[in-house]
Amino acid sequence: MSDMFEVTILGASGGPVDGNTQSFMIRPARARDLNAVCIDGGAGLGQIVKCVLNNVGGEESLKRDEMRVESFYENDFESIDLYVDEDLTIEAGFSRGIYDLSSAGRSNTIQKAGALFHGIGEYYITHAHLDHISGAIINSPLAYGTSEDISNDKVFLGLDFTMEALKKHIFNDIIWPNLVRDGTNTINLKSIAERQGYRSNTIPDWQIYPFKVHHGNKINSDTEESVLSTVYLVSDTVSGKCLVVCGDLEYRIAPGGDCVPSEIARFLVDNVPPEKLSGIFVECSNTSSIESDKLYGHLSPIRLIKMAKKLESYYSDRYKDFDSLKLNIIITHVKKIYAEVDPRLQILEELKHHASKVGLTNVRFSMAVEGYTYFL
Amino acid sequence: MSDMFEVTILGASGGPVDGNTQSFMIRPARARDLNAVCIDGGAGLGQIVKCVLNNVGGEESLKRDEMRVESFYENDFESIDLYVDEDLTIEAGFSRGIYDLSSAGRSNTIQKAGALFHGIGEYYITHAHLDHISGAIINSPLAYGTSEDISNDKVFLGLDFTMEALKKHIFNDIIWPNLVRDGTNTINLKSIAERQGYRSNTIPDWQIYPFKVHHGNKINSDTEESVLSTVYLVSDTVSGKCLVVCGDLEYRIAPGGDCVPSEIARFLVDNVPPEKLSGIFVECSNTSSIESDKLYGHLSPIRLIKMAKKLESYYSDRYKDFDSLKLNIIITHVKKIYAEVDPRLQILEELKHHASKVGLTNVRFSMAVEGYTYFL
Repeated sequence: MSDMFEVTILGASGGPVDGNTQSFMIRPARARDLNAVCIDGGAGLGQIVKCVLNNVGGEESLKRDEMRVESFYENDFESIDLYVDEDLTIEAGFSRGIYDLSSAGRSNTIQKAGALFHGIGEYYITHAHLDHISGAIINSPLAYGTSEDISNDKVFLGLDFTMEALKKHIFNDIIWPNLVRDGTNTINLKSIAERQGYRSNTIPDWQIYPFKVHHGNKINSDTEESVLSTVYLVSDTVSGKCLVVCGDLEYRIAPGGDCVPSEIARFLVDNVPPEKLSGIFVECSNTSSIESDKLYGHLSPIRLIKMAKKLESYYSDRYKDFDSLKLNIIITHVKKIYAEVDPRLQILEELKHHASKVGLTNVRFSMAVEGYTYFL
Repeated sequence: MSDMFEVTILGASGGPVDGNTQSFMIRPARARDLNAVCIDGGAGLGQIVKCVLNNVGGEESLKRDEMRVESFYENDFESIDLYVDEDLTIEAGFSRGIYDLSSAGRSNTIQKAGALFHGIGEYYITHAHLDHISGAIINSPLAYGTSEDISNDKVFLGLDFTMEALKKHIFNDIIWPNLVRDGTNTINLKSIAERQGYRSNTIPDWQIYPFKVHHGNKINSDTEESVLSTVYLVSDTVSGKCLVVCGDLEYRIAPGGDCVPSEIARFLVDNVPPEKLSGIFVECSNTSSIESDKLYGHLSPIRLIKMAKKLESYYSDRYKDFDSLKLNIIITHVKKIYAEVDPRLQILEELKHHASKVGLTNVRFSMAVEGYTYFL
């Protein structure tokens, strides 16, 4: 029961299937209120309804061997054990605790889902690509004018480039009604500073650090103009435990010869003792069958393993009694391509294979699966 | 078996729930190929998968009394008979014909769904609000680089204001990769002319006429600058049968004293004999409990009935032997608000009440329900 974070997977797809793209709803494990933040908003209320339904089934949550994953490849539904490490604690739907809070005094599913939605005070957006924002934007009219009496200051946060994109291209009365006009503040957009801890208003024990990363190049550009993205470090200031959640990112060699995500690894090693790092959610969009020039700013199994191995070596250099990297790495943003086998299962197999080859034997790999809550 | 159109409802919500907003996949009834067009793209491949699943269950489609609707209000699932007129022919999922075509030689659900997706040659977009485009945009990388050997020229069509919005604010390498750069034509954006029949490339027997309508005012504007939207008239040139599909629209009195959508009614009366008008898909986003200044450019039951009654009176003036308006009006884009009762059921009840008061007794009202195919 020492888990500090409770992560409900609203969406973990990297497209091209729509409806459940990346969105993680996170709260302190076993908290006694409905407060939560989302990292990314590719899916929203539609998936909250689905998670609520996943909770239904009596007082007890689903047993592990009853948990099913929507796959649609070899079989339409597969066992959760193929996707999630057996030692990682999960529950179907929301955790029992927050589900019970959402149910109190509410009779129907849409109202329970609404209560959970209103508990989300902040969205930390990694970048403004549609698969990371579409759900939160379509939900946004619900941030005002409801009959629920739950406090209701929704804030979208992110680095400058993300907030500017939302202002200019989304809330512009063309793609979406301008709900952020000055003076009414129905939706707040708030830029936060790179590498600095931002104290969450929704969960005041948390400091949230954004790091800028590269996510490939713009297509329609003669120069190599970068698309940018963000990695978030969520730090619980009471316990010191930390969780890393990544937006899309690429393995890019910087002019100095180091790969860019290594800067974040160095920050981690300097600031987070190894036993305080609870887990990392990171994209691995494609299987190894995709050629490297077709990654379009995403990771592949071998590159992700290189990064994890580098993190291990940094910790090893810094901490004398450090043995090996021991944590959960949870994969998100897999592309749902045409295939015979679920690409998520293929990617997990490749990650375990490459990890074994480089001796990264104490990292536990799982896939983020929509409709489940992970305890870390 | 004289139905000319087969409309599969991929999404019919007007938000704020995400994941199944407006998108209609349409083909000639009982056609022998996979070709289809979509009007709007608020939902896409994610809902196509769900429709394919709805087809599974042996050789026979679901019987009417086994058909269920996801509601999440009084009950999570309700009987279809509450939503769809008993004389309107529907099937669960896709029609048996197109489902069988998609299944031939394909073993898994994602491949069947992909085949159906690749059959969609054209998206006719009513306006660029995110709830009408998000699915199609997130699906768009699938329009190239697949292992399926199905012809694959995806075209997004619409009036100028819609196409300009997609170019400037969506496919701009900020909100979405620029897949429409000159020279490669991975995605085509094509402006079509108002009130002129555009011959569909996907279904050459069809002429599609766009009409510009108003959809409220921009919020962040001192002047009354309109948000625009589109109504499409799909005309089968062989049978002469027509189907009308509306984007969001408001009942607005023009300077001449007539309401703006009446212009479309006049066009219909001048060009489509009453017996050739198969049906109208039209939004009715809100129940009558919403005050008129909170409609934000949408219809309400009483305004929709006024428009239908006006159409009846125009036909009556024009055709000597015309008795009364006899057609299916199918409601879409209902807002999923907090309530005890499913607002779709409330709106249907209000429509029938107002229709009865004005003597509009031969119009059959139904609700568009995701996951079902309607024959008109």
